[in-house]
Amino acid sequence: MNMLATPARLSTADDDFDAQFKARLHWSADTDAAIEQRVADILADVQQRGDAAVLDYTARFDGLGAAAMAELELTQAELKAAFDGLSAVQRDALQAAARRVRSYHEAQKKASGESWSYRDEDGTLLGQKVTPLDRVGIYVPGGKAAYPSSVLMNAIPAHVAGVGEIIMVVPTPKGEKNALVLAAAYVAGVTRAFTIGGAQAVAALAYGTQTVPKVDKITGPGNAYVASAKKRVFGTVGIDMIAGPSEILVLADGTTPADWVAMDLFSQAEHDELAQSILLCPDAAYIDQVQAAINRLLPQMPRAEIIAKSLTGRGALIHTRSMEEACAISNRIAPEHLEVSSNAPHRWEPLLKHAGAIFLGAYTSESLGDYCAGPNHVLPTSGTARFSSPLGVYDFQKRSSLIEVSEQGAQVLGKIAAELAYGEGLQAHARAAEMRLQTVPEMRMSP
Amino acid sequence: MNMLATPARLSTADDDFDAQFKARLHWSADTDAAIEQRVADILADVQQRGDAAVLDYTARFDGLGAAAMAELELTQAELKAAFDGLSAVQRDALQAAARRVRSYHEAQKKASGESWSYRDEDGTLLGQKVTPLDRVGIYVPGGKAAYPSSVLMNAIPAHVAGVGEIIMVVPTPKGEKNALVLAAAYVAGVTRAFTIGGAQAVAALAYGTQTVPKVDKITGPGNAYVASAKKRVFGTVGIDMIAGPSEILVLADGTTPADWVAMDLFSQAEHDELAQSILLCPDAAYIDQVQAAINRLLPQMPRAEIIAKSLTGRGALIHTRSMEEACAISNRIAPEHLEVSSNAPHRWEPLLKHAGAIFLGAYTSESLGDYCAGPNHVLPTSGTARFSSPLGVYDFQKRSSLIEVSEQGAQVLGKIAAELAYGEGLQAHARAAEMRLQTVPEMRMSP
Repeated sequence: MNMLATPARLSTADDDFDAQFKARLHWSADTDAAIEQRVADILADVQQRGDAAVLDYTARFDGLGAAAMAELELTQAELKAAFDGLSAVQRDALQAAARRVRSYHEAQKKASGESWSYRDEDGTLLGQKVTPLDRVGIYVPGGKAAYPSSVLMNAIPAHVAGVGEIIMVVPTPKGEKNALVLAAAYVAGVTRAFTIGGAQAVAALAYGTQTVPKVDKITGPGNAYVASAKKRVFGTVGIDMIAGPSEILVLADGTTPADWVAMDLFSQAEHDELAQSILLCPDAAYIDQVQAAINRLLPQMPRAEIIAKSLTGRGALIHTRSMEEACAISNRIAPEHLEVSSNAPHRWEPLLKHAGAIFLGAYTSESLGDYCAGPNHVLPTSGTARFSSPLGVYDFQKRSSLIEVSEQGAQVLGKIAAELAYGEGLQAHARAAEMRLQTVPEMRMSP
Repeated sequence: MNMLATPARLSTADDDFDAQFKARLHWSADTDAAIEQRVADILADVQQRGDAAVLDYTARFDGLGAAAMAELELTQAELKAAFDGLSAVQRDALQAAARRVRSYHEAQKKASGESWSYRDEDGTLLGQKVTPLDRVGIYVPGGKAAYPSSVLMNAIPAHVAGVGEIIMVVPTPKGEKNALVLAAAYVAGVTRAFTIGGAQAVAALAYGTQTVPKVDKITGPGNAYVASAKKRVFGTVGIDMIAGPSEILVLADGTTPADWVAMDLFSQAEHDELAQSILLCPDAAYIDQVQAAINRLLPQMPRAEIIAKSLTGRGALIHTRSMEEACAISNRIAPEHLEVSSNAPHRWEPLLKHAGAIFLGAYTSESLGDYCAGPNHVLPTSGTARFSSPLGVYDFQKRSSLIEVSEQGAQVLGKIAAELAYGEGLQAHARAAEMRLQTVPEMRMSP
């Protein structure tokens, strides 16, 4: 097998850089109308027929027949048995990763997820009460892309938030179960687990069936059917984000060994042919070294074929005029994973506005973050880091405003509110405010 | 006009309470397939033809013809002139409300919207960097339901978050502009404003046109077309929530004047016939007093007809066995606005799990919160308070994880990550972690 991985070689000094750059980046999240219609039908059917519909679709799409939903539930004993069946080194690795992920999310909760309140000069109390969701569903992809680390990354923040019940769904095509996924569910403390997937699993979680409990929010990545189903049930339940192909952007000043950078680009490319790996660097000679490392290391990789297709089809090595320009281009991309592969990463970090996760310095390979550094690996893709955030404890909490107006405060606020309410033609609003005044004025009509 | 407002009278002691309660609460957020298709067509057209399409739809739906989009832009001078044209008392009320809303959201940002980080025992840095969105769009309904207070509630948190540009859209059917809305845009510091609305305005903001800049997120309520359009562009841009009819739930122990409670129920009911006002109270005699107050006060209200339809069609006065039971029922409803009309509100507040905003004590009428107490009045409706939060500074910020693994940290994390990556069959991930080890092991195949 003679494979080549040749990412596009661009330079910001090229006249047509903008056009080339846009063409490379282009990715459309538009869903297919046919998929949308099939998903709508599946959702309606599960909403109406419950378990029976889920069983039908599971038999049809996953080749997994069952007489009753109970047969598709994984017991806690099965999850524990899967964990016990792992090698000691795998068990330790899973638990160590879980520990670090938990500890990071506990810090996150403390920093930004606690209730708060204050009283103003009139003694009026204002604040927000932060509470966990009651019950959430986590979708774990099955088959080839079954990632136990995703179980930890979804379930642990929910636990830290204080969610009462965590319901996992994971398709097991032809009944084939992934022991690491089951073990991760055990380690992460999943409450109940069902071997169902696709739009039918999303529907079961969103509407509830005779057996699957209705949840308040569904998180976790999936294929086009799952993404379309999540978008469609949004409003009935909460959802996290719609995941696109994974991406890495490496911003290099040339001080990291080129082999390390090449392997980091591979580690994104090996996910999937549509994954995107991009290098931005002001040093042309270093870019040559990275390409040479790619050529040298590729043949060793078991997933070389996927890596080659991804790098050649969607990858890019971009020569920039400066690190500053590289940072500006990174902000245009708003990448999911952003490595600042520099010996002065804190010089560049303040210039970086949009990214799911920022990996600082040569030792911070993306893969350390993917598994066990602590931060979540569920990150906004396809430029959505411009407006969304990593999955976190905050996704499993919600806030209620708290207001307690003092009698004194009501005298001040009542007049302001009444004025504005009359202006909007909402006289009952105005009157409710005025009734709290010590001297209640005559009711006015609106202007 | 002889109108009656007769909310359903239920008791938790009734045998069929559950069925009656569910029937009263029922509200379907399902969108109409015909609306969905028309919205999809409008979005595609605006995406393709830009300004020209927006102009066509604005002429057709709003009866507002213009030769170019520039004619539909409101200048800063127009916004200021609208403010200057108000009465002094209206100007003061708008500014006082804006000041309080700003100060509350500044406290919110401080409590839960700042960047944080820490170093673990290996010197590895972990945290999150919080940054504002670059540019947001706020949708302000026009016509009858044009609420200047909504301009403040959307634009001010965006400002406090540090958003660079705030683009407002507000339909002006037949060119009729609401001076208070324009003045509120001036007070809130809106960057640019266009007199467009409907799905075409959402499309213009989501995709950008020759004249309307593309935004990162769209917030603000609208009709069924706007809601469907927001849901459809979700992923291309961020959106806040999909708003349903407004609701109030009053949890009363009988210590608040019955007139006050009746007026608070009115102030929700006057919004719209589909609005929902519910009273939960363990004291049957007090419920009678509230009904008597409703009968007495209704004829004075200019919006009596809407109030009567809303209360009779969707309202309920529910007699409970106790305040504890009332709290439990409130949690099942997860109301948008929850008044704890009690002389001991802090006794009940800890029992309340799901609500958009909690108004504590007799002086805290919902209308004070709607306009000027400080907290946001854009709140989750239709039970979505189970999983979502008031609009806030956090809606205009996003987070990027920060990770800087030390050389020492890489020795520990590298082994864990490699073990899990080999387990998932992702050898490049494993290898990237192993390359950072001081003693690089041979590459393994996956199990």
